[in-house]
Amino acid sequence: MKVAIIGGTGYGAVELARFLQGHPYAELTTIISHSQDGVSFSEVYPHMAEIIDQSMESLDVEALSKKVNLVFFATPSNVSKDIAPALVEQGVTCIDLSGDFRLDSPLLYQTWYGAPAAEQDYLDQAVYGLSEIYRQEIKEAKLIANPGCYPTATLLGLIPAIQEKFITHQSIIVDGKTGVSGAGRGLSLPVHFSEMNDNTKAYKLGVHKHIPEMERFLTKEAKDSVQVNFTPHIVPMTRGIMTTIYADLQEEITQSEIEAFYQAFYQNAPFVRIRKSGSIPSTKEVYGSNYCDIALHVDKRTGKLIIVSVIDNLVKGAAGQAIQNMNIMNDWDEMAGLNVAPIYP
Amino acid sequence: MKVAIIGGTGYGAVELARFLQGHPYAELTTIISHSQDGVSFSEVYPHMAEIIDQSMESLDVEALSKKVNLVFFATPSNVSKDIAPALVEQGVTCIDLSGDFRLDSPLLYQTWYGAPAAEQDYLDQAVYGLSEIYRQEIKEAKLIANPGCYPTATLLGLIPAIQEKFITHQSIIVDGKTGVSGAGRGLSLPVHFSEMNDNTKAYKLGVHKHIPEMERFLTKEAKDSVQVNFTPHIVPMTRGIMTTIYADLQEEITQSEIEAFYQAFYQNAPFVRIRKSGSIPSTKEVYGSNYCDIALHVDKRTGKLIIVSVIDNLVKGAAGQAIQNMNIMNDWDEMAGLNVAPIYP
Amino acid sequence: MKVAIIGGTGYGAVELARFLQGHPYAELTTIISHSQDGVSFSEVYPHMAEIIDQSMESLDVEALSKKVNLVFFATPSNVSKDIAPALVEQGVTCIDLSGDFRLDSPLLYQTWYGAPAAEQDYLDQAVYGLSEIYRQEIKEAKLIANPGCYPTATLLGLIPAIQEKFITHQSIIVDGKTGVSGAGRGLSLPVHFSEMNDNTKAYKLGVHKHIPEMERFLTKEAKDSVQVNFTPHIVPMTRGIMTTIYADLQEEITQSEIEAFYQAFYQNAPFVRIRKSGSIPSTKEVYGSNYCDIALHVDKRTGKLIIVSVIDNLVKGAAGQAIQNMNIMNDWDEMAGLNVAPIYP
Amino acid sequence: MKVAIIGGTGYGAVELARFLQGHPYAELTTIISHSQDGVSFSEVYPHMAEIIDQSMESLDVEALSKKVNLVFFATPSNVSKDIAPALVEQGVTCIDLSGDFRLDSPLLYQTWYGAPAAEQDYLDQAVYGLSEIYRQEIKEAKLIANPGCYPTATLLGLIPAIQEKFITHQSIIVDGKTGVSGAGRGLSLPVHFSEMNDNTKAYKLGVHKHIPEMERFLTKEAKDSVQVNFTPHIVPMTRGIMTTIYADLQEEITQSEIEAFYQAFYQNAPFVRIRKSGSIPSTKEVYGSNYCDIALHVDKRTGKLIIVSVIDNLVKGAAGQAIQNMNIMNDWDEMAGLNVAPIYP
Repeated sequence: MKVAIIGGTGYGAVELARFLQGHPYAELTTIISHSQDGVSFSEVYPHMAEIIDQSMESLDVEALSKKVNLVFFATPSNVSKDIAPALVEQGVTCIDLSGDFRLDSPLLYQTWYGAPAAEQDYLDQAVYGLSEIYRQEIKEAKLIANPGCYPTATLLGLIPAIQEKFITHQSIIVDGKTGVSGAGRGLSLPVHFSEMNDNTKAYKLGVHKHIPEMERFLTKEAKDSVQVNFTPHIVPMTRGIMTTIYADLQEEITQSEIEAFYQAFYQNAPFVRIRKSGSIPSTKEVYGSNYCDIALHVDKRTGKLIIVSVIDNLVKGAAGQAIQNMNIMNDWDEMAGLNVAPIYP
Repeated sequence: MKVAIIGGTGYGAVELARFLQGHPYAELTTIISHSQDGVSFSEVYPHMAEIIDQSMESLDVEALSKKVNLVFFATPSNVSKDIAPALVEQGVTCIDLSGDFRLDSPLLYQTWYGAPAAEQDYLDQAVYGLSEIYRQEIKEAKLIANPGCYPTATLLGLIPAIQEKFITHQSIIVDGKTGVSGAGRGLSLPVHFSEMNDNTKAYKLGVHKHIPEMERFLTKEAKDSVQVNFTPHIVPMTRGIMTTIYADLQEEITQSEIEAFYQAFYQNAPFVRIRKSGSIPSTKEVYGSNYCDIALHVDKRTGKLIIVSVIDNLVKGAAGQAIQNMNIMNDWDEMAGLNVAPIYP
Repeated sequence: MKVAIIGGTGYGAVELARFLQGHPYAELTTIISHSQDGVSFSEVYPHMAEIIDQSMESLDVEALSKKVNLVFFATPSNVSKDIAPALVEQGVTCIDLSGDFRLDSPLLYQTWYGAPAAEQDYLDQAVYGLSEIYRQEIKEAKLIANPGCYPTATLLGLIPAIQEKFITHQSIIVDGKTGVSGAGRGLSLPVHFSEMNDNTKAYKLGVHKHIPEMERFLTKEAKDSVQVNFTPHIVPMTRGIMTTIYADLQEEITQSEIEAFYQAFYQNAPFVRIRKSGSIPSTKEVYGSNYCDIALHVDKRTGKLIIVSVIDNLVKGAAGQAIQNMNIMNDWDEMAGLNVAPIYP
Repeated sequence: MKVAIIGGTGYGAVELARFLQGHPYAELTTIISHSQDGVSFSEVYPHMAEIIDQSMESLDVEALSKKVNLVFFATPSNVSKDIAPALVEQGVTCIDLSGDFRLDSPLLYQTWYGAPAAEQDYLDQAVYGLSEIYRQEIKEAKLIANPGCYPTATLLGLIPAIQEKFITHQSIIVDGKTGVSGAGRGLSLPVHFSEMNDNTKAYKLGVHKHIPEMERFLTKEAKDSVQVNFTPHIVPMTRGIMTTIYADLQEEITQSEIEAFYQAFYQNAPFVRIRKSGSIPSTKEVYGSNYCDIALHVDKRTGKLIIVSVIDNLVKGAAGQAIQNMNIMNDWDEMAGLNVAPIYP
C-alpha cells in the first residue's frame, strides 16, 4: 500500500518515516512539505541519510489522490481541516495527527483552538483513533482523528475505571509531565536549550486544548458528564509523557482486584502493559516504542485511586498510534512495523 | 558566632558550607564526618579547593560543645535524634535538617520512618523551622526541626489559603516534582545517570514520609484535620522542586483577590515572591537561591484552586532555610549570607 | 540459529536482546547471569516486559554448548578469557564484547588491563571484529574480539587515511567524548546523576585501555608503528560517542579528494556514512542505530586533517557490531536485525 | 561607582547583574536595551523579580556619560565598535564583552568576523582583559577588550608553558567543549532543546573567530609565531567550558616540576586553581563562579603535555572576568563581588 505524509519537516513526520521504512506492508512514496518543496528529506534530517533521501513535494490534492491510498497528516492545527475532506472525497483514507477532527462540536473547537472548525459533516464522520478502545470503529473509518499525546496516556489509564464506575466523575485530576519534543520543532524561548535544561515548568493552566478531548471521551465512556482538571508540565527530557491521575474511589476495591480488572480489560491489547503492584513505570521504559505502561495504586488512607500512565509522546502519542490505526484499518497484524522494544537506557 | 556542620559529606553540608563561607556573622569552624574523619573537605569536594580546605573531624559531643555555639545536622534520618538532645543539654543550639524532630508523635514517626523516634520531650521542644510562618517561635528556639523540601514548597503555597478557609480540607492533592539531588549523594540504581537521564519517575506512592509532616502543619493552621494526597516524582534535573497543588475552592473568589491576599500575607517575607497573574514560576528561576516563588490559578470551570510553588530543594528546601533560621534566632538580617540572586540560565 | 548471552544484566546484554528479538534468523534462547540466576529478564529490565520474560540461568558450559550455536559475551574484562575458549572447544562460536581478546600480546594486556591475559593460542586465533575492515577474516572466525566503542569510531575514521598514507603516523591525537552508558550499569560516584548532569569530565589521561587497541590496528594497517594520544571525556548524555581526530597531512590533498576517497572506501559498507563537506555529524544522528557517520575536514591553514566520527556506543560500539559480525559469519544480510533508522529527536 | 550595562537582555547581562547586585563598591544604575526599551528587567528575567525591577532604557551616549562612570557592553559583535569609542571620548570607562576590540589588525577582524573593524586607534588603545596575565595594563586602561570564553580557558592553561618554552609552538591542538549558554539567548535550531539534549556536536571546524584571538596572545607571550588548531564542540549542559590542550614537550620535564611551576606562576591569582596530580577538574566544579581550574598531564609515552582547563563560560569566560577587570582598574579587592563558591552539585 502506498502512503504519503503531509507536513514532512516536523517530529511527527520523522517518526512516521522511521516506522514506515521498516513496515512490511506499507510503502512511503510521497512526503509533502510546504516549506521545503524540492529539498531532500535527509537534508532536513541528516540522520536519515541513505535511508530516506527522496525529495519533498508541494501539495496537489488531485495528483496525490492518484498516487497513494492513505495519507498521514503531521501538520499543525488548522491545516488538515480543509485538505483531509478533499482527499477523503477522492477516496484516500486520512489519518490526522493534529487536533482538527477530535472534537465534534465546532463551538468547542473554536473556544479551545481559537479558529473555525472543520465542517460538521466531517467532524461527525471522523473516528477517534484510540486504538485499544475504538478498534471496531477504526476498522470502518475513512478519516481518523488520531488522539493527542496527553489524552492517549490519560484515557488508556482512566477508561477501564470510568466504564466500571470504580471512581467518581467530578473528582478527576490529571497532572501531566511531558518531554520537550511535544512542543515540536518550531523555535521558541521556553524550549531554547539553555532555558529548558535543568528546569521544570507548568504551563497553560486550565486552558490546554487537550482538556475538551479528554472530557469528550471520558463522558462518552462514563455515559455521564465527566470533568477533568488537567495541568501540563514540561520537564527536561526529549521524549516521554507521564500522566499522574487522581480520582476518588466510589467503592471499596483492593489493589489486586483493580489490577486484575485492568489486566483483563487489556488482555488483547498488545501495546498496553499493566504493571504489577509495586512496579511503577518510568517514561524511559517505553522510549521509542508504542507501549503504554500503566500502574494502579489504591490509596486506602485517602480513598483515592492513583493511576500512573506513560507513553512515548511521539510514538503511542502520535506516529506509532497512527501506524497502529493504519494496521487495524487494513486488517494487518496490529504490531506490524511497530514491533520494536523500547530503547533502554 | 562559631558553627559546626555534622554530616560533612552530603549535599546538605556542601550547601551549608557555600552559604556560611560568605556569611557576615557566622564562622564555620568545624565539620564533622563519621566516614571521612581526617580528610580535607576540599578533597571530598574539589570545587571547594582554596575555599574550605579544613580537615573533617569525628564527633565528640563534649569537645564540640566547647568549640561552637550552633550545630547544623546534615545527616540522614535517625542520627540527630540522640545527638541533638545531648548538644542542647550542653547549651548548643541545634538546627536539624533531617526529619527526626518534625513530627511530635513517636507513633507516627515509627510508622513513616520505620524506626523509634527521639524522646517525646525533645519532640515537644523542637520548633518547626518554616521561617515565614513560625518566625516568632523560631526566635526563642534551642532546637529547630528544619522542614523537608516538599513540605516547604507545599506549606508556603497552602497555608494562606488554609488559614483563610479559601479551600476545603479533604480535597487536597499535591503532585511533587523534584530534582535528583534530593536523593542525596548515596549511590543507587534509580539515580544512576544512565537510568535517570531523559526519564521521569513516580515513586513512593502514598508512603512518602513528608506526608505526615505536611498534614501536621496544615492541620495546625486549619484548626481542623487536613488530609493530603501526595505523590512525588523525580525528573532529570539536579536541583529544584515544584509542587502543583489542587484543592476545591470553598467560595467564590477571583484570581486578583487571591493574588492580593497572598501578596499581603507574605509582604514581610523577603524570600517569598508571589507571581503576577499569567506568570508561572519554573524551578530554574529560583536555582541556587533561597526564594520560594508561588503562582495561583483560580480554575473557574472546575471550581479548583491550583497553586504552583517552586524552591531550590537544597536551599530553601534545606541549607538556605537553615541559615535563614539561624539568622532569625540571632536577630540578624533574615537575608544575611543568603542575599544572592538565582543563577540563570 | 540459537544464541545465548552471557552477562545478562548489563547494558550490552539489553541492547543485544533488543536487536535479537527482531532478528529474522537468530533466536535468543538463553540468558546467563551469575548474579540474577532464576530471575526474569523483565524483572531486571521492566521495559522488556511481555517481550523477553524468560528467566536467567547460571552458567554451565557443557549444557550451554548443547543448547546454542553462538554465544555473546557481554561481561566485564577478565571473565570471557577462560570461558570463551572452553565454549569454542565445544564447537560454539563466541563473540566477545569485552576486551579480553583484542590484544595479542599478553604483556600489553597485563599492562593496560592489570590482569593476566587469556592463553596466547586464543589471543592468536581471535579475529578482531571491526566489520567493515576485517569482513573476510570474520567470515572464517570461531572467536570474535568485538571492538571497543572508542576504537570503533576512531579506526573507522582513521584507517582509510592511514592505509593511503594521507597522514603522518606520529602526530595522531584522538579526543573522545562519550555518553555515560559506556560506564555500564555499575554504580559509582562519577556517574551518579547529580554529579554528572550538566557536567563534562576528562578521565584516564594517558591510561585508557583502548589506547593499545587503537595502536595495534593502526600499526597493522599502516604497516608501520603508529602511536596515538587518546584522551577520553564523559559528557552528560546517555548514548553516543564522538571522536575528534587530529593528524598532520603528509601531502597536499583537497577536501573533495579526501571525501571522494572515503566514499569509495566505504561504498560497500552499509553502516558507514561519509558526510558531505560542511555537514558534521552529531551523536544523536546515529542514536539507537548501527551507523557510523564520518566527516572530514582539511584544515589548510594548519596542514591538518580533522576527522569527526560518531557512533552509538552501545550499538556500533558494542551490541550492534556484534550482531553485524554474527550476520557476516553466517553469510546473512549484513543488516539483518539491524535495519533500523536512528531515533531522532 | 555607578555603572551601566548595554545589551540588557542577553545572558552576559544577566550574569553581570547577578554579580553587580552583590558588589560592595559598584552600583548598577542603568540597563540599556535596544529591543526592550521601557520594559522592566525582571519582566524579561522573572528570576530577578524583587531584585532588579528597574526599567531598561534606550541608548543616549551623551546622557549615559553623565550618569555613569563605567559601561559594560554585553552586546553581539559589531555593536560596541562605534559606541565604546564615543563613550571613552566622554570619559566613561568601557569594558567590552564582545570581540570588537580583541584583535589589533582590522584585516584579521574583517576576515574572521566578516565585518569592518573598529578604528585602529581604539584597537591599539584597548587592553586585553585577561586579568591574571595583563593586570598591570588593565589598571591603566580606559577600554577593555574582555576575552572570549574559549580563549580565557585556553590562554590561562597555555601561557605559563609557552612563556617558559616547555612546549613547541607549531604542535598546539585545542579541543573545546562548551555548554549551550555560550550560544546566547537567540533562538536557532541547533540549540533547540529537542535537538541538543542528549547530543554532542562539533561545529565551525577551522573557522571559529576565537582562533585569531588565541594566536595573537600566544604569539605575544611566546615572542614567536604560534599557530593553534582549535575545534569547538557543544555538549548538552547549560554552563561550562573545558578546553583540552595538546602540545609537544620541548624538553624532559616531570609531572611534579610542571605542576610546581604552574602553582608558582599563579600564586597571586586568587581565581586560578592548579589541580594536584591525578585530580582532573570537571566543568561543574567551577559552576557559577569565577574560578579557572587547570590540570596538567605529562604523557611520557607520547612526549606530550596535556592541559585540561575549565571555566564557567558566563562567569570567568564573560561577566565575572569583566567584574574582575573593573575591580583591578579601581584598585579594589580583585574578588569583590565575585567571592562566591561554585554551586555543586
